[in-house]
Amino acid sequence: MPSSCDLALYAAHILCRAEDGAIHTLADGAVAVTDGIISALGAKSALTRQWQARRELDLGNVLLLPGLINAHAHASMTIFRGLADDLPLMEWLNGHIFPLEQRLTGRLVHLGALLGCAEMIRTGTSAFQDMYLMEDEVCRAADVAGLRGLAGEGLFAFPTQGVPRPEAAPDLVREQAARWRRHPRVRIAVMPHAVYTTTPEILRACVALAAELDLPLHMHLAESAAESASCLKMHGKRPIPYCRDLGLLTPCTSLAHVVDASEEELDILAQSGVCVVHNPSSNMKLASGVTRVPAMLERGIRLALGTDGAAANNRLNMFTEMGRAALLHKAVGGDPSLCPAEHIFAAATTGGASALGDPRLGALAAGRPADIIALDLDSPNLQPMYAPVSHAVYAATGMEVRMTMVDGEILYLDGRFTRFSYPDLLAEMQEVQKEIKQIHGLLNMSVGQCLSAGQ
Amino acid sequence: MPSSCDLALYAAHILCRAEDGAIHTLADGAVAVTDGIISALGAKSALTRQWQARRELDLGNVLLLPGLINAHAHASMTIFRGLADDLPLMEWLNGHIFPLEQRLTGRLVHLGALLGCAEMIRTGTSAFQDMYLMEDEVCRAADVAGLRGLAGEGLFAFPTQGVPRPEAAPDLVREQAARWRRHPRVRIAVMPHAVYTTTPEILRACVALAAELDLPLHMHLAESAAESASCLKMHGKRPIPYCRDLGLLTPCTSLAHVVDASEEELDILAQSGVCVVHNPSSNMKLASGVTRVPAMLERGIRLALGTDGAAANNRLNMFTEMGRAALLHKAVGGDPSLCPAEHIFAAATTGGASALGDPRLGALAAGRPADIIALDLDSPNLQPMYAPVSHAVYAATGMEVRMTMVDGEILYLDGRFTRFSYPDLLAEMQEVQKEIKQIHGLLNMSVGQCLSAGQ
Repeated sequence: MPSSCDLALYAAHILCRAEDGAIHTLADGAVAVTDGIISALGAKSALTRQWQARRELDLGNVLLLPGLINAHAHASMTIFRGLADDLPLMEWLNGHIFPLEQRLTGRLVHLGALLGCAEMIRTGTSAFQDMYLMEDEVCRAADVAGLRGLAGEGLFAFPTQGVPRPEAAPDLVREQAARWRRHPRVRIAVMPHAVYTTTPEILRACVALAAELDLPLHMHLAESAAESASCLKMHGKRPIPYCRDLGLLTPCTSLAHVVDASEEELDILAQSGVCVVHNPSSNMKLASGVTRVPAMLERGIRLALGTDGAAANNRLNMFTEMGRAALLHKAVGGDPSLCPAEHIFAAATTGGASALGDPRLGALAAGRPADIIALDLDSPNLQPMYAPVSHAVYAATGMEVRMTMVDGEILYLDGRFTRFSYPDLLAEMQEVQKEIKQIHGLLNMSVGQCLSAGQ
Repeated sequence: MPSSCDLALYAAHILCRAEDGAIHTLADGAVAVTDGIISALGAKSALTRQWQARRELDLGNVLLLPGLINAHAHASMTIFRGLADDLPLMEWLNGHIFPLEQRLTGRLVHLGALLGCAEMIRTGTSAFQDMYLMEDEVCRAADVAGLRGLAGEGLFAFPTQGVPRPEAAPDLVREQAARWRRHPRVRIAVMPHAVYTTTPEILRACVALAAELDLPLHMHLAESAAESASCLKMHGKRPIPYCRDLGLLTPCTSLAHVVDASEEELDILAQSGVCVVHNPSSNMKLASGVTRVPAMLERGIRLALGTDGAAANNRLNMFTEMGRAALLHKAVGGDPSLCPAEHIFAAATTGGASALGDPRLGALAAGRPADIIALDLDSPNLQPMYAPVSHAVYAATGMEVRMTMVDGEILYLDGRFTRFSYPDLLAEMQEVQKEIKQIHGLLNMSVGQCLSAGQ
């Protein structure tokens, strides 16, 4: 007697994970999905005998992969994409990003996050970790779009659009956590912004809050040598020991960037069990320095990948991050065998699952959530295929994604977003662009840099 | 009385070049094309009054850009894509690439090149420079696919599949040049492979041959510190002075890589008028070192971009190269204002035109060849748009290309290649993959690295 499942997916190739953790490729494979979970995975011929599917979807010549996990994003910043590039860091931050963020509204945060979700879904990301202002609006966007999200209000020592009274931050996080507690895909984390925008008291309060509510903790750390110098000057310690001594570095913490880390500081990270989220595009574009990824991998430090915000990237595309991560460290380390494709693919999948505190994610296997993407192997840049993981890391742009599924639900298939009207979002973006341009006072910039105001 | 044209293209945005060289964006624009040349370019409202088009194509919300120019490729190497990654250089070359190339056939070279052309067309490249073995097969692929190509047989001191008797190389190049002389898009160049695979006599003969036939010259140069050391040992000079003294460095020469160059050697390059073709992906993947692009731009050295072969990249995607070039030098130079988007875009367009010796290419303006690509601005990663050049360099993956036109002819439009059967090529690739796997003896590799033989 065959068992029944909600959906059977058929695909020419499936990258799956055996019980011993080894990754292997199934040819002419099938996945049975029930209640958002992979019920079975195997050769199509065998699976169709054992399972009766209420719906079948034959994707043909595709490679099924686990959805990628973007472990550090500011999805709403898509609305600033390409607005200010190639600038010295302080001019970029103080002359562009911070003034823009002071004028943000909930509507802009929401629409930016929805656009960010659209881009992530379109390019094969199934889950993301996000820190921003008015983060509830990001949670709502993730809810609408169908992505998994671990989201946190960015907490600062000064008033923001999201937390007008910094002393009220713990209550705001308690409310957010309560509001999203029962959501099947969206969860809340405690997210102090960084050492240079908070105080020791705030960071201690964040540790206490994370313990009280049993939430993960996420923050930017050691993003540049300048941050280290200012932390040393203000607090008498560099960022990593400073945070260790405040109790921030635990297995429930993930740290974005960690560009400036000494040998001993890497040892501290390894001993603490934190997860590091590497953001190669952002680090390169802002010239923040180069995260010591090979040294981290050698020490067994948990590694995930992230896109950071679109203002510093300018994409939310995890295929882009995989490619750049794999290449950057070869170039900087002078060794082509550093950061092999398998390690980078692991960072973008199981590493991301670990960063988000949800180890069920990041692999295709029976019993795991059906967060699945399909890459079109008919695309000329994916021909021929000898090694699926190499293709995912080095050859795919992310736009070969034909399908993105989260929790067993198809969010995108062959050009169509299923849970929201993408044409409506495009129409809203026309208005958003005008608003942002007005705020930014773009009108007097050169015509070669940006579109003239009338367009 | 309106003039008549073959085709009128309409587009929401067009990036065009004014007579003074400045780049600006036209909104609601149109391009009139006649006999492969842009007859006129302007606001749609004005252009439709002045021109009567035999065919109209309204592309809607796209950005028209000049076709990108891939100034250093080995298109046929797509057939090795992903076959051997993350290996030490000598193991990669001697254990994989060279043994495979010794078994190449004309059919494999041709099919690989056609696949490479398909990938380039799909991702917005309209012209390429290519060096390989049995290069006539690459020329035929460019001819079939409709791309512009500047092609050359790779010339070595030892027998190859393309030139079994090295002493016959000049005659072979003379024959190739004669064979393709009247082709509207495919031209021949003289291409000694590199200093470490040739002799001073061969290089001198190449200079003489280029002068005799009035052909450009292209070669790999100073790709790594190891090459410099071996050149110094063998010839008493480092590669750049060695080539200068042999008469190779002229304004008709383009050099791929040029990773290892001292201050004085950069001065030599600047004085000689050569064009440097930077290949960021390949240099990073093989850990060859980092080309000193900012120092080259400062000296006014002509700069183009290339993909190199798919075995060392693993893409032939010029959008990928633009993004990586713009980011790599910021990271390595520690300055986010290095290699701004405009400079990198210039390298991929007018710089490539200069490398290929065809300065008409690389910009959209009346009187220039209609080599035009259209980027889909409805793609979520290109929303919103403030700065078109930023989008081209930082945000686009290349897969947003909806149309690629060369010489006024549409080669690709919305999923369809117009000049050859892509489904037939896919079918051929299944055979090619099997053949290459057999040659490579993949059967005993681990299942996580590559597909098992039966697939």
